[in-house]
Amino acid sequence: MLPADQSTPNYEYIVDQLDKRNADAYVHIGDNQDQLLWYLTQFNGPDRDYAFVLTNTETTLCAPALFSEQAEREFPGDTVTTTKNNNRASAAQRSITVLKNTNEISRVLIPDSTSYWVYSELEKAGYTTVTTSNIEKMKMQKSPAEIENIRKTELIAQKAMQYAETILANATILEDKLIWKCKPLTTKRLRREINVKLARNGANDAGNTVIGAGESCADLHFNGEDNIRPDETVLIDLGPRGPSGYFGDITRTFVPGSPPEWEQDVYATVQKALQAGLEQLNDAPSITGSDVHTKIVEVIEANGYKTGDVDVGLYHGTGHGVGTSLHEPPFFSRDTVLEPGHVVTIEPGIYDPDRGGVRLEDLVLITKDGAENLVDYPCSSMPCERSI
Amino acid sequence: MLPADQSTPNYEYIVDQLDKRNADAYVHIGDNQDQLLWYLTQFNGPDRDYAFVLTNTETTLCAPALFSEQAEREFPGDTVTTTKNNNRASAAQRSITVLKNTNEISRVLIPDSTSYWVYSELEKAGYTTVTTSNIEKMKMQKSPAEIENIRKTELIAQKAMQYAETILANATILEDKLIWKCKPLTTKRLRREINVKLARNGANDAGNTVIGAGESCADLHFNGEDNIRPDETVLIDLGPRGPSGYFGDITRTFVPGSPPEWEQDVYATVQKALQAGLEQLNDAPSITGSDVHTKIVEVIEANGYKTGDVDVGLYHGTGHGVGTSLHEPPFFSRDTVLEPGHVVTIEPGIYDPDRGGVRLEDLVLITKDGAENLVDYPCSSMPCERSI
Repeated sequence: MLPADQSTPNYEYIVDQLDKRNADAYVHIGDNQDQLLWYLTQFNGPDRDYAFVLTNTETTLCAPALFSEQAEREFPGDTVTTTKNNNRASAAQRSITVLKNTNEISRVLIPDSTSYWVYSELEKAGYTTVTTSNIEKMKMQKSPAEIENIRKTELIAQKAMQYAETILANATILEDKLIWKCKPLTTKRLRREINVKLARNGANDAGNTVIGAGESCADLHFNGEDNIRPDETVLIDLGPRGPSGYFGDITRTFVPGSPPEWEQDVYATVQKALQAGLEQLNDAPSITGSDVHTKIVEVIEANGYKTGDVDVGLYHGTGHGVGTSLHEPPFFSRDTVLEPGHVVTIEPGIYDPDRGGVRLEDLVLITKDGAENLVDYPCSSMPCERSI
Repeated sequence: MLPADQSTPNYEYIVDQLDKRNADAYVHIGDNQDQLLWYLTQFNGPDRDYAFVLTNTETTLCAPALFSEQAEREFPGDTVTTTKNNNRASAAQRSITVLKNTNEISRVLIPDSTSYWVYSELEKAGYTTVTTSNIEKMKMQKSPAEIENIRKTELIAQKAMQYAETILANATILEDKLIWKCKPLTTKRLRREINVKLARNGANDAGNTVIGAGESCADLHFNGEDNIRPDETVLIDLGPRGPSGYFGDITRTFVPGSPPEWEQDVYATVQKALQAGLEQLNDAPSITGSDVHTKIVEVIEANGYKTGDVDVGLYHGTGHGVGTSLHEPPFFSRDTVLEPGHVVTIEPGIYDPDRGGVRLEDLVLITKDGAENLVDYPCSSMPCERSI
């Protein structure tokens, strides 16, 4: 599905990790659900295990023979070696053969997400394993080609948002319901329209089209069916995977009809918090994700809302990295310094399970002298018929 | 995204596995990419770890608090317990707390796909772990509600196939290209049309829309762009995930223009092989998947084509189970007896990397006195404008 149009992954990062942990090779075995493995190999492999092996001398993809042409076409590393069978036993055995054919390998670094089964195979083959949770961090620093991929997916997400907003703007209000094309507009119908628009542009919704209406906005990952009613919030959070394999992420909230006082006030507060977060990012690259989160929390509390472990207010993190995964480091909950080439969301929100909720989310590239917003989409509670 | 509209998973199967392995509890930790965990919990959780725990007294879902409403709504088991944080440390700790609160737990069964990290946490907490690769097999036996889910997804897949075939039928031939809506028809354009149709019907292409044209038909998972040319095979293999979370699977091959001799002969042979496989299934439930594979191989070899580890001929397996995963047990490569309630593909194919390839695939429910084809879609090399 995904063309390998980003630059070669920064394998030097893994070599550094080997040095730090006094290991001689890195072995990563997983299937096509493993987004870090996809990043490492750029191989659109099967839904059964295949392997990536890095030694000081070369990088190898151990792919099933049925996928050999594709593996050769996609893998940017040194060598593709194929296994007759398309299963995990082949993947593990083939990676062990690569290790055996390389001199002086005794300690092998594996991600701590490695399956127990693979770990046992390596140990049985005589290797000492050391585990790491650090490899995922190599994805934080995006190359210009990767940034371009994210930018393109974010544009597709914005087009889908524009279509959804236009539907809301064109819907008519009949008593307590929104009517669109002669039928009540539900979160399910709107989700389907959005997913069609994403598919039309070559993106996959990846199960990440979240739409809440009224109370269900407070259920952060609502994926059910709800009538969309006037004077209540409609929260639309899109996290599609683009044709390049890179994700985008954007959230807007609308109030068809006339926003009541609470909805108006919450909207204004969340918008201020987003603005404050964006301004704070202009101080990058000398700040951390948790600095941004703290700033957002300050604004929300200053406006009279609670944050943290609460039932009403802001009860989630406000930012994360986006790349070959929808959620990846850096996370704003940690003290990772934001550096040029990081791509992160800013997503303040305020919720009340009895009334609804507002979240606004932009996607931002950290640059050497501040930040560039990859989203060019207005925040307005009143849905408009837009063209972008 | 997915309503929990199948019946409760057969937890008794796991209890039996505990007995067999002399274990006191089963712990399964994974994220929303783990289709077995989804089956066990029916919970559309986050892309970070959560846990399922089964003891002799109850089944528990340990979900992050941010997802608590959704977890309560979706989990068909006994108890939902929530963790403050949305991360794997919380999931592991919470599952250990459930174990600690249950009397007489010392040996814990874990799937061997369990991450090394989770395994270590359980061992550190004082439990002995035993691993299994058997749990996936509990999915083989489908309930009536599950069969209905698969049937619905397969119908969506057939609608998308019908649309794709109609596009091919309506395309005009201009020199060596197919032209549709004034532009050359490529595998990429056709894939996009299919994915839009799937989205319109609430299904996700799940990255499984494979289209080959000419030579690329022999590349079994071709996902790139190729011109679709007259007198060459166009192979369309769809494996979407329906709104219920269950997959479908269908393949058809067409030859726009006039099939040359090789293409005609291969098409006829593959169609005979499919027919023979379907007839063999009528002897179910007293046969194995490998019986069916052997029968298909016989037909293909009797017609002068090679099979097995070859460059030209049939070089892949010819059947697998379909359910909450696109590929799950039973696999025709093994001697698993086909039983009523199994849903399996039959997919013979013949390929020549210099000329193209033909694959035809139906999806079949094993019944107590034979088999029911869940596909009602003709096999015809000439694309027609169809309505289904």
